Amino acid sequence: MAANQSFDPRDFRQALGAFATGVTIVTARAADGLPVGITANSFNSVSLDPPMVLWSLAKNARSLPVFAAADHWNVHVLANDQDALSNRFAHAGEDKFGALALDAGVSDAPLIPGCSARFQCRAAFQYEGGDHVIFVGEVVEYDRTPRPPLLYVTGSYALAARKAAAVASVATECEQPDAIYSENLIGYLLGRAHYQFVAGFRPTLDANALSDADFFVLSLLSVRQPLSGAEIAAHIAYTGADIGAVALESLRARGLLEHVPLSGEWRLGAKGRDAILHVLAAAKAVEADAFEKLDPMEVVGLRNLLKRLIAVTDPGLPKLWRGTPA
Amino acid sequence: MAANQSFDPRDFRQALGAFATGVTIVTARAADGLPVGITANSFNSVSLDPPMVLWSLAKNARSLPVFAAADHWNVHVLANDQDALSNRFAHAGEDKFGALALDAGVSDAPLIPGCSARFQCRAAFQYEGGDHVIFVGEVVEYDRTPRPPLLYVTGSYALAARKAAAVASVATECEQPDAIYSENLIGYLLGRAHYQFVAGFRPTLDANALSDADFFVLSLLSVRQPLSGAEIAAHIAYTGADIGAVALESLRARGLLEHVPLSGEWRLGAKGRDAILHVLAAAKAVEADAFEKLDPMEVVGLRNLLKRLIAVTDPGLPKLWRGTPA
Repeated sequence: MAANQSFDPRDFRQALGAFATGVTIVTARAADGLPVGITANSFNSVSLDPPMVLWSLAKNARSLPVFAAADHWNVHVLANDQDALSNRFAHAGEDKFGALALDAGVSDAPLIPGCSARFQCRAAFQYEGGDHVIFVGEVVEYDRTPRPPLLYVTGSYALAARKAAAVASVATECEQPDAIYSENLIGYLLGRAHYQFVAGFRPTLDANALSDADFFVLSLLSVRQPLSGAEIAAHIAYTGADIGAVALESLRARGLLEHVPLSGEWRLGAKGRDAILHVLAAAKAVEADAFEKLDPMEVVGLRNLLKRLIAVTDPGLPKLWRGTPA
Repeated sequence: MAANQSFDPRDFRQALGAFATGVTIVTARAADGLPVGITANSFNSVSLDPPMVLWSLAKNARSLPVFAAADHWNVHVLANDQDALSNRFAHAGEDKFGALALDAGVSDAPLIPGCSARFQCRAAFQYEGGDHVIFVGEVVEYDRTPRPPLLYVTGSYALAARKAAAVASVATECEQPDAIYSENLIGYLLGRAHYQFVAGFRPTLDANALSDADFFVLSLLSVRQPLSGAEIAAHIAYTGADIGAVALESLRARGLLEHVPLSGEWRLGAKGRDAILHVLAAAKAVEADAFEKLDPMEVVGLRNLLKRLIAVTDPGLPKLWRGTPA
């Protein structure tokens, strides 16, 4: 590690950012009745008995006088989908609360719904903390939901996922981190996860006599149709499946596809609509079964990371979802 | 949200757990020269100017007298692979430091290597905090590394990943969360991520005239060989590829596989070894290219979540890596 003799504020903040935190909004009500609120990730628990929490606020914050005078304040631990709310309360603005519907709490401090957890606090101590004031409060009421929390890590919003065990190895002493093909190769993990998932609804594919390539065509048209043969091929080429006119004609012969009159584009036939609905229902069931065994936080995180990987490996595929679904 | 009138300590702790944190080890040296250290997730930043941080320690902690008397203490923000170290320092033990090689710091407080960030602090304030004491320190030196941090969220160690943007949709108002086939279906995301990844090294597959099924067989044997035809089929069946005797014979005719004398099991031929090395090198290059565009934290997190998904959808595949590699 490289030591830093000079404390560049930006660099110091980045080092502090290595400590992951949740994101909270702390609220209070001013003497004149106006609600105040501020985004803070300086929250933490302090004591179990009595139940106490703390957070800190810059001495030059506009809301400091209100919090310093408040006898109650509420801490809202934000859920993973509340990053917009976090941004809104992070910047000075006249109308942070806007049309927010507030819940009723033990005090008149604003209580925002939709969070992962909320702590309603009676102000207990205010402590000196350099350019900040440390507020310690006694928790007089709290509630929580299963919503996965929003995180703030190394300067960005983030999601969390439980640490997993090894997949295929049976003994760590047998792992070969330098082997060219190991269970850590992302291609292996993607392939295994994907094929295991598809294996869950392959009986439904088989029952409908659908090959993988047939499935790609039908599911594509279930989202967007009609499409020309060239468009279908362009959407599917990245899978390695080569969909030509012969393959499409064969699907038409089976009643799975049909031609749009005049344009010559392709759309699902009655049998195709029926088949893809059955297959997608089976895929949904596989998904539901897997998600039941995962933490909600992991489900959100997995979708998130697959989207990140897809974005950085996208060869420039045509957009699939465009608000013109079948 | 359901309110909790009674403050069951376990339930209250779980609610506090909704606030994600990093994991730290705080260390000091006793007057008699013995090192002390304790795992804490109550750390947080307080002030930028002067640079100050805080953490809290239970009043009944055995190490409290040492920290209360120490003029310096060090905070170590743990990296994602330091969960064992976290566990070691979380429980009272005679030999937490054991054979740990320590770095030299500005004070005699123990300085542990391998962390995401470290803050060497001069003790500044000790504040009353219910059943805990709040320690505030002035940071006199700090350093950091790019190692992704370890997290503690809702009672478990966790990893973080940056929030991703949508993949395929172009406008959020067009999203149809209830559509049976949407970009949020994990099967779609897995398939798209997997096929995009494979597309990156498909030219190498094509140059070696390898089908997907051929690739599965060669990569399997590159990890474990020799295998019987039945074993090969059992390892690969979940991909949907049907590897029979004819397919294996055809690979033998091309010099990619060969029979083990007497046993009749299969192993890679010279051409097969060469081909799979080229393909795996190409796959590694695709992986390296993708990882360059992702945060190290996301790489760790993606592997982690794919392993979790694989574990919960595993149909009971035979173990692949067993310390008997090719």
